[in-house]
Amino acid sequence: MSKFFKESLELHRLLRGKWAIKSKVPLQNSDDLSLAYTPGVAAVSSHIAENPASSYALTMKGNSVAIVSDGSSVLGLGDIGPEAALPVMEGKAILFKEFADIDGVPLVIDADSVGEIVSTVKAIAPTFGGINLEDIAAPKCFQIEKDLQGIGIPVFHDDQHGTAIVLLAALINACKVTKKPIETLKVVINGAGAAGTAIAGLLRCVGQDSSVCMPVDDVLVCDSKGIISKDRDNLNPEKTKLLAYSNRHNRNGSLLDALKEADVFIGVSKGNLLCGDDIKLMNSNPVILAMANPIPEIMPDEALQAGASVVGTGRSDFPNQVNNVLAFPGIFRGALDARATHISEGMKIAAAHALADCVNPIDASHVLPNALNRDVARKVAEAVKAQAIAEGLQRAT
Amino acid sequence: MSKFFKESLELHRLLRGKWAIKSKVPLQNSDDLSLAYTPGVAAVSSHIAENPASSYALTMKGNSVAIVSDGSSVLGLGDIGPEAALPVMEGKAILFKEFADIDGVPLVIDADSVGEIVSTVKAIAPTFGGINLEDIAAPKCFQIEKDLQGIGIPVFHDDQHGTAIVLLAALINACKVTKKPIETLKVVINGAGAAGTAIAGLLRCVGQDSSVCMPVDDVLVCDSKGIISKDRDNLNPEKTKLLAYSNRHNRNGSLLDALKEADVFIGVSKGNLLCGDDIKLMNSNPVILAMANPIPEIMPDEALQAGASVVGTGRSDFPNQVNNVLAFPGIFRGALDARATHISEGMKIAAAHALADCVNPIDASHVLPNALNRDVARKVAEAVKAQAIAEGLQRAT
Repeated sequence: MSKFFKESLELHRLLRGKWAIKSKVPLQNSDDLSLAYTPGVAAVSSHIAENPASSYALTMKGNSVAIVSDGSSVLGLGDIGPEAALPVMEGKAILFKEFADIDGVPLVIDADSVGEIVSTVKAIAPTFGGINLEDIAAPKCFQIEKDLQGIGIPVFHDDQHGTAIVLLAALINACKVTKKPIETLKVVINGAGAAGTAIAGLLRCVGQDSSVCMPVDDVLVCDSKGIISKDRDNLNPEKTKLLAYSNRHNRNGSLLDALKEADVFIGVSKGNLLCGDDIKLMNSNPVILAMANPIPEIMPDEALQAGASVVGTGRSDFPNQVNNVLAFPGIFRGALDARATHISEGMKIAAAHALADCVNPIDASHVLPNALNRDVARKVAEAVKAQAIAEGLQRAT
Repeated sequence: MSKFFKESLELHRLLRGKWAIKSKVPLQNSDDLSLAYTPGVAAVSSHIAENPASSYALTMKGNSVAIVSDGSSVLGLGDIGPEAALPVMEGKAILFKEFADIDGVPLVIDADSVGEIVSTVKAIAPTFGGINLEDIAAPKCFQIEKDLQGIGIPVFHDDQHGTAIVLLAALINACKVTKKPIETLKVVINGAGAAGTAIAGLLRCVGQDSSVCMPVDDVLVCDSKGIISKDRDNLNPEKTKLLAYSNRHNRNGSLLDALKEADVFIGVSKGNLLCGDDIKLMNSNPVILAMANPIPEIMPDEALQAGASVVGTGRSDFPNQVNNVLAFPGIFRGALDARATHISEGMKIAAAHALADCVNPIDASHVLPNALNRDVARKVAEAVKAQAIAEGLQRAT
């Protein structure tokens, strides 16, 4: 049990949650009330009715992001439902505020089907400048995100793309340590859920302009039954889709078979899965990003002793923490500042490069910035905004 | 044009809206992050998964109210849509915070049908301790509110019940001025929309235990075609329902016919509708509550000159302002503090009496407290909470 469990429960009980609202205007006298509410507010509403895009400048819309979850895949806890997911969404909201001054609104929803979740998000979309989908189980998360593209504001499933972006940044810098060009890497991803699928897509530059992105040579994705290949007869539709951008040499076998001659292991699976001998199957100077929480797929010491060059985990008490907080605040800040209609693959790549550039000097224990580094979100936001503008993704005004 | 229009627009532009969030916990170091977010928050989520009612004590749920509107009937502006309604909902949210320390979350929704609005509110309900419906057009507001009863948290359409409660409080105190017992009053309500319908229901004690509520003798409701009676062949279903608790002597005719021998005129219609001679049709010492905004149905001076004993309006620059801010913060505060599953008729009556009791001394220019009186919400909340407990309406823990 984490040493933080008891204290966190007490803190939440004492404060009755972590999230609150505040007014940006005074309400001391009758004039204050007339400006903030009736009759003055009628002028603001009328203006927006005539100029819909002005809602970004005149209301909370321009600075707010809904953090939407059905609670179907929360942390390592699984399908615990909306109420139990709420403390996590509140946590996310205060991170948005702290790192990017974004007003995050937790919205945990009671909805079983893809269609119900999609229609709920579409309905509440006018309130917000963006939608952060969170802790929604695979494979339904893929369809939900797909169905929500084109609603006019960015919709971003952080468990997929946030993780993939931070991972790519780590890999960009790890390549500087190992002196292997990123496009030559052979990468094994263990875990074919939300994060694994998104990482594979980003590494293979799916949907991206090849002029801005050099795909890595080969990506193998494994699930609990081994390498995902076209010879398998037990693949769900999402895993079948993965074949379009993974396993281009059609290899078969177990995770250990996949590791032979691989340069990078990316774990988004479960703890205590690998030992030092497994790492020794890999090419020299392998990069190990073992992100299972709270116990990584292999502990950093053991991986380093077995010859790993760079090791990252999801934990704050080891070097190279792969933490989504390095990405999502800056990504949404940039998207909101650009009034982007969506978050493109190019914006994700730009975010990863900006994040990688935040580290100086880079060494085996420093391929990512510290999660509390206050400069990161600003730099990521600038890169994301610039890319959105370069791609012409701004909402018409 | 209101003198506040230009300044309000500038204020909103300067501040980019009125609403923001804040974190209740520090996020300065790694331990802070571990307590507010992972890994500590997992303990909170696990606890709620096992004890669902604890979400009230451990998350924002216990102190938050969604302010939901489709923008179909906003102030005097009509059906201006969700984005244009957002400044009003933000205003409401900061009033909730200022007067009752409730975290109000504006949610403007893009949904055409009753069914879509109902399913959206049901879906997001796990996040909140209550739902304030706002600025939704009649008659669909009635069905929406009805369909949302029984979802386990209070759902309250403020344009109906908030207005009715403040109105009843004004009438309770006006009766002390005119020395007419409230149950003997003959009341004319002009306007058969959300507010008019709810006022008629509350005055006639619809759905209430007669031991806590003495119905007024007769209520006539008029629409633009005159008195709503069973002889009319142009009534929609909602107006037909009104006949169950209005016009018990089956009178017919115009608004002026209705005013003959009435004690109270309640206007929720449009400005400049009545003149002094019309008031003279009424019984002696009539009470005039002319709430059309920004121009009342009759100006206070004219009504007083024609013999009115008490005149109230919706405006802050005349005495006796009927302002919903006197009711909704305290009502939701009381309902949240009681963890009430809904807001009963008894809770509404209790709120009206508590509100009436806030005025001392009572005279013709003081039948309601000032909208900025900071004691009102607390006193209303105490009465509402006590009534909820007395009726056994608390959510099971």
